[in-house]
Amino acid sequence: MFENLPGFRSFYPEECSQRNYIFRLWRQSAIRFAFQEYDAPVLEALELFKEKSGEEITEQLFWFTDKGGREVALRPEMTPSLARLVGAKAASLKRPVKWFSIGEQYRYERMQKGRLRAFYQFNVDIFGEPGCGADAELIAQCIETLRGFSLTANDVVVRLSDRELWLLFLRCYALEGDAVTPVLSIIDKMEREDPAKSIEKLTVHLGERAEHFFARTQEMSKLQDLDSIRRVLFRECEEQSAADDVRNAIEERLQTWILLLKTLDSLGASPWIRIDLGVVRGLAYYTGFVFEVFERTGKGRAIAGGGRYDHLVSKMGYNDMPACGYAMGDVTLALLLEEKKLIPPLLHKPDVYLVISGDKARNLMLGLASALRRVGIIVDYAIKEVGFGKQFKNATQSNARIVGIMTDEGASHKVLNVKDLSTGIEITVPFADSVACIQDALREGITQPEL
Amino acid sequence: MFENLPGFRSFYPEECSQRNYIFRLWRQSAIRFAFQEYDAPVLEALELFKEKSGEEITEQLFWFTDKGGREVALRPEMTPSLARLVGAKAASLKRPVKWFSIGEQYRYERMQKGRLRAFYQFNVDIFGEPGCGADAELIAQCIETLRGFSLTANDVVVRLSDRELWLLFLRCYALEGDAVTPVLSIIDKMEREDPAKSIEKLTVHLGERAEHFFARTQEMSKLQDLDSIRRVLFRECEEQSAADDVRNAIEERLQTWILLLKTLDSLGASPWIRIDLGVVRGLAYYTGFVFEVFERTGKGRAIAGGGRYDHLVSKMGYNDMPACGYAMGDVTLALLLEEKKLIPPLLHKPDVYLVISGDKARNLMLGLASALRRVGIIVDYAIKEVGFGKQFKNATQSNARIVGIMTDEGASHKVLNVKDLSTGIEITVPFADSVACIQDALREGITQPEL
Repeated sequence: MFENLPGFRSFYPEECSQRNYIFRLWRQSAIRFAFQEYDAPVLEALELFKEKSGEEITEQLFWFTDKGGREVALRPEMTPSLARLVGAKAASLKRPVKWFSIGEQYRYERMQKGRLRAFYQFNVDIFGEPGCGADAELIAQCIETLRGFSLTANDVVVRLSDRELWLLFLRCYALEGDAVTPVLSIIDKMEREDPAKSIEKLTVHLGERAEHFFARTQEMSKLQDLDSIRRVLFRECEEQSAADDVRNAIEERLQTWILLLKTLDSLGASPWIRIDLGVVRGLAYYTGFVFEVFERTGKGRAIAGGGRYDHLVSKMGYNDMPACGYAMGDVTLALLLEEKKLIPPLLHKPDVYLVISGDKARNLMLGLASALRRVGIIVDYAIKEVGFGKQFKNATQSNARIVGIMTDEGASHKVLNVKDLSTGIEITVPFADSVACIQDALREGITQPEL
Repeated sequence: MFENLPGFRSFYPEECSQRNYIFRLWRQSAIRFAFQEYDAPVLEALELFKEKSGEEITEQLFWFTDKGGREVALRPEMTPSLARLVGAKAASLKRPVKWFSIGEQYRYERMQKGRLRAFYQFNVDIFGEPGCGADAELIAQCIETLRGFSLTANDVVVRLSDRELWLLFLRCYALEGDAVTPVLSIIDKMEREDPAKSIEKLTVHLGERAEHFFARTQEMSKLQDLDSIRRVLFRECEEQSAADDVRNAIEERLQTWILLLKTLDSLGASPWIRIDLGVVRGLAYYTGFVFEVFERTGKGRAIAGGGRYDHLVSKMGYNDMPACGYAMGDVTLALLLEEKKLIPPLLHKPDVYLVISGDKARNLMLGLASALRRVGIIVDYAIKEVGFGKQFKNATQSNARIVGIMTDEGASHKVLNVKDLSTGIEITVPFADSVACIQDALREGITQPEL
């Protein structure tokens, strides 16, 4: 007997309808925000992913050498492919480029709750616009997507942070250049790591200042308003005798924060957002505002995450292009929706089930099935000729709304019986009018005929 | 610079919208016929595909050993995964099982026109019903799908054939058991192969009768009506002194043909169908009626193909379950639709573009953007603050239907200007009514206000 590979899923109709529900609302939200859909191959040159993320990435990739001797990999994320698509046509694309995709990603990882080896991601990105208006539009789109699933600001929170402020904090400690990425990565992991371990790692970069630095990052991570952020950063400037331009840069950045928050407020996003510098985002390529969406109480894995990444396109070998984007995964989202009981019944049911007895009736009824299906009505009937009782049982089990009934006698009189299964009301109509009658019945129900 | 791997595609928004159009109509057609959607992993155990198709299949697979030492392969087709899904839950699934899927398949093949290494397939299958009513429902569904793309019976033809009739033909020549599959495979290839080569291969199984047999298969392949088929097969029975039960079996099978054609006629499918024994279908597992859809003049590769495969589920190790199904590929279909100019303009355009001047106006207008998007309207605006002229140019280029305009002066009077870009008519409305006014304008256009 065969089974799914570990971390891969099959989708029986029930599960598939749930997956498609998520896809449908993702797509709908992106389209309303005037994003255009794209897609890229699930299999790409291994080099593409190494170029973006370094050699280590191969450890978590499904990669192999194909029959043509090419090193290829199943994509672990969308961004490298996206960057190459945008980079290759940058000159002809109208800016800002607002794009989204819905696609499966593959990572050879240790599985845990909410983490599989194959999962779907909704990727939403804006290219070509450096201003924080793009960040605001992106975050608002993320929030409206969650709202589309009937989630509220009581259910989830957008933790909004800023790599630039963190860079300025590091500059107070004269951490610049090559030291920045490893130190940010240590800060990113602090939430989940033993403090002694973090301090040990910081010592490499900060010597005996490591313990003090650690305490201050802890303080930074808890800040949730701009005034406190200003106060803490200016104190750092003073204590560490930072240059004046650091102080100026902090003030300037806080002005951008004010503009971003105002724009988000205009877009109706404020109740969903929490300033939270505890979010750093592990990936090296983020450059500005970053955010992660979590269940409000903080439990579980992130539902979505993203931010600004202004230099990735040029890193991939194309012309420089500002960018911001986020990804939302289907697995954590589905877990949350299940927990909140926000998944509606989704399986398609027949609008009409046709109950047929006799050859003449069968001939007419199959024609009716075709006619109804052509006007968009979902029709089922018993493929095999079985008794009336069995057919009615099928009709009921299928949860059809309307049953159309015909015997050979009905066929010779050219009439059809139409029954509303919810009320039990049944009427007889001329077969010639049956499509229109069934359309009416589906729209308005069947009313008891006057006697 | 990075490119797609050979035979793989990226989908820029234009191409993606075309792909999604095909997906949408596939899904819509299947749902109307009361089929349920399923999906299976793109990566499966290599053994699954070997079990179905034999060791040779590995030659055209993307397969490799994963980090856990498992031999795995990208699926080359849906049927093995489908058989395992249905087989595993056979006891609890309500029959007939009517299922469809839309998914990508991967084959390491030599590329040609209409054949890539990654392509999408629409798979439609019925399990649990041995009678020809299922074949009819399946073929009708295929035809209605094509009709959904505005193709007509003048554009395409369903070539309907029958492996059972071919088996009876072989029985006339006492070809049974192990000889059947290779001989059918030779017949399948005749359309595209040098006759001398075919005869040489037949000699292995038929000795000096090979040349005569070849001539007769050629005759069979050209038959297009039941009377001729009966005549030719009965002549074969006589000439080859076949047993009486062969003759009876032929007569019985022709009765099933009559029933199938009658059912297809009731379903409105007749104009699309041509009896054509030239179709044999290469795959060993087909057992009954088989069909392929071609462009009417016969050029190009098959657009769809399928048939009955009653023993595959048991071959995969599960309980026996009758089945029939077909697959339609996106590549050949798209080529045909392009040629017939049947692809409508598909990119989503904004319903409304908001033109904004000033901070106060911006605050109100971003709120309006959110309100409109929440009621399902596609809204775009300039993320960056730019001049009025530039914003109108953007609005026009985006092909928006309606433009909403506000300056700070409008904001202080709480009014919005609404302009229909197709007529140039512009009206001023209270900002408080703007959502309703824009909904009306999108539904009915804007009429010139009375002066």
